[in-house]
Amino acid sequence: MYNHRPTDRLEYFSDAVLAIAATLLATELPKPETETGLLQEIVKQWPAYAAFAASFLFICIAWVNHHNMFIYIRQTDQYLLILNILFLMFVTLQSFTTGLLAHHVGKPEERTAALIYHGTLVMMTLLYNCTWWYATRTDELLEEHADRKLIRSLSKEYVIAPVLHLAALIICLWSVPFSIIPVLFLYIYFALPRLSEKRVKQKNPT
Amino acid sequence: MYNHRPTDRLEYFSDAVLAIAATLLATELPKPETETGLLQEIVKQWPAYAAFAASFLFICIAWVNHHNMFIYIRQTDQYLLILNILFLMFVTLQSFTTGLLAHHVGKPEERTAALIYHGTLVMMTLLYNCTWWYATRTDELLEEHADRKLIRSLSKEYVIAPVLHLAALIICLWSVPFSIIPVLFLYIYFALPRLSEKRVKQKNPT
Amino acid sequence: MYNHRPTDRLEYFSDAVLAIAATLLATELPKPETETGLLQEIVKQWPAYAAFAASFLFICIAWVNHHNMFIYIRQTDQYLLILNILFLMFVTLQSFTTGLLAHHVGKPEERTAALIYHGTLVMMTLLYNCTWWYATRTDELLEEHADRKLIRSLSKEYVIAPVLHLAALIICLWSVPFSIIPVLFLYIYFALPRLSEKRVKQKNPT
Amino acid sequence: MYNHRPTDRLEYFSDAVLAIAATLLATELPKPETETGLLQEIVKQWPAYAAFAASFLFICIAWVNHHNMFIYIRQTDQYLLILNILFLMFVTLQSFTTGLLAHHVGKPEERTAALIYHGTLVMMTLLYNCTWWYATRTDELLEEHADRKLIRSLSKEYVIAPVLHLAALIICLWSVPFSIIPVLFLYIYFALPRLSEKRVKQKNPT
Repeated sequence: MYNHRPTDRLEYFSDAVLAIAATLLATELPKPETETGLLQEIVKQWPAYAAFAASFLFICIAWVNHHNMFIYIRQTDQYLLILNILFLMFVTLQSFTTGLLAHHVGKPEERTAALIYHGTLVMMTLLYNCTWWYATRTDELLEEHADRKLIRSLSKEYVIAPVLHLAALIICLWSVPFSIIPVLFLYIYFALPRLSEKRVKQKNPT
Repeated sequence: MYNHRPTDRLEYFSDAVLAIAATLLATELPKPETETGLLQEIVKQWPAYAAFAASFLFICIAWVNHHNMFIYIRQTDQYLLILNILFLMFVTLQSFTTGLLAHHVGKPEERTAALIYHGTLVMMTLLYNCTWWYATRTDELLEEHADRKLIRSLSKEYVIAPVLHLAALIICLWSVPFSIIPVLFLYIYFALPRLSEKRVKQKNPT
Repeated sequence: MYNHRPTDRLEYFSDAVLAIAATLLATELPKPETETGLLQEIVKQWPAYAAFAASFLFICIAWVNHHNMFIYIRQTDQYLLILNILFLMFVTLQSFTTGLLAHHVGKPEERTAALIYHGTLVMMTLLYNCTWWYATRTDELLEEHADRKLIRSLSKEYVIAPVLHLAALIICLWSVPFSIIPVLFLYIYFALPRLSEKRVKQKNPT
Repeated sequence: MYNHRPTDRLEYFSDAVLAIAATLLATELPKPETETGLLQEIVKQWPAYAAFAASFLFICIAWVNHHNMFIYIRQTDQYLLILNILFLMFVTLQSFTTGLLAHHVGKPEERTAALIYHGTLVMMTLLYNCTWWYATRTDELLEEHADRKLIRSLSKEYVIAPVLHLAALIICLWSVPFSIIPVLFLYIYFALPRLSEKRVKQKNPT
């Protein structure tokens, strides 16, 4: 009933948006124009640099996982395309929220900026999961011989990102610095080799 | 008489410009530097964020349709290239007009900024149609076995975009907020699976 | 004696830099923050918009010709790579010189800004020619069956760009507005189907 | 035990980030808004333009070498991916450190800005070497028939970059202008055809 296209151009466009969004982050870093004590000024603004590193790493994690996701997706339809585009919209918002957080750290409105930062990440990871959920619910979009067990374990892994970002959002209501903890857990989780990928390995030993 | 080239490098360049233009939009978003009431400040500037979302979605719609268009175009010539480049020029202007609109919303010059915003979209969609019209008028540029009926129905679909943006431009002379209505119609139209694409499906059932 | 690589990754990198440089131009456009008379303000700054359009079109012309050039180049070596990288460096400077010109138009330092603008284009087109000259002088870099006549006619065509930009630079010393004339000639020249491309057509009629 | 992927998408993403980072540099160049003496103002800021050229050339050198490196790498695993992503993070920081240095040249905090500039390059080249070291230590990541001698000579070549940047960092503690000397050595070294590449030539004479 709907139109289907091969996924390569969608992957290409997503890759380009993710690469540009990751690279643009550095342009939002505050460049102190102070006449003396430049290093102290930069050290004082460490949360801006931490937010940059966190956003950069997170966009790269999104890129790696987006690629893994499309290994199992054979073709796209109108709705998958729309979900993926909305996901990318929140990816591009990262440079805005990172810049906003960088500017307000240590100032009265720090919490609001941190809530917007975490909220955008919740939306981005939720839309990522929606894209995957929609693809797994629509048989004709998946690769024909995709391992159902593997797909279920990927679904479980992907859901961890919005849950931990939501946790960060809630912790942020009490304490901004502690809201970093679930984000660190997320990095450690994605840095370690994972169950589902071992399975991919066993299936495609090339 | 003219030189012809395969279309892949043109598609690649267009994809890159569209991806970059979409990602740059977020850098034009106003980052309020207020000491108190950050959330209220951001809520007050909602039209800037709406203009960002509208421009992002519209560039993505342009990307999807640009791709569909080049399924039927076998090769390019000098004039098709020029029309496509002029189309891309107005695509890159989106970040400028979105930033201009974002800045002037709620201020005395709101209408002028909105007229420039809609006017750029009229030009961009008109040039998109010119590219398509030129390709369909020049037999050697089209795929040999392209379905004439399908091409006519695509021509009709594509013309809807400049017509609705022109309507938005005219409505804007009376009321800026109401000028959003034809744009919303356009989104709904392009979000729904369309007649011409069902036909593509029936022809290429893969 | 030197190392040779296939040209595809160099073409890819050049394409990406050209696409990004073209898209970034629009972010340098002045966005008047005036409370009244926005349209008049924008009309008054027309040379900034003209400089944007000129730079955008010129980067696109460079892209089209760069692609044509690499049809005849089979492989690269260290020196071709360096010449091409220097060419790209002056391409990325376009956004800087366009922004500088846009800012100084109608102000006392207009001429200096225009001289820098034209000077960068002279350097960029000269380096483009150097890349081509070096490739044509080094037999192992060219496609084996490249038509020598065609290559000579391309060499003649390419040399027109730095000559006309140098003319613009010299005219600029007397009159800034008249310096646009050689640039317009260049556009008309590159917009018209050219002799060398007709020959390509006859050779590769696909 | 770990998951392996073909390297093409990683190369594509790295290429895109390197191309964008190189092109963004020009947007950090100071555009003097002076009413008189524009040329003098620009000449006075020459170190900003020198820093731009140095960063642009260095990102291009990194791109050329990154490509050469991946000729010998057959597949990636989780850790290679992480090292490569960290390398790219420091690549994107170039626009920040170049802008910072450009702003502080000739001002009291010049040395601090230069130290940050050189320090980022030390980190970037160190992470480049780590990526290569990790790949050469892990047999299953390398091309099967990779020449061990060639790999050792590449390892020696790559280590020159962090060593010379560290030298620049140390010289910078005494004199900022002299810290340019090891960087110039690096350029000359990478501009000249190198031993390891002659060997590649002999092996792949195509």
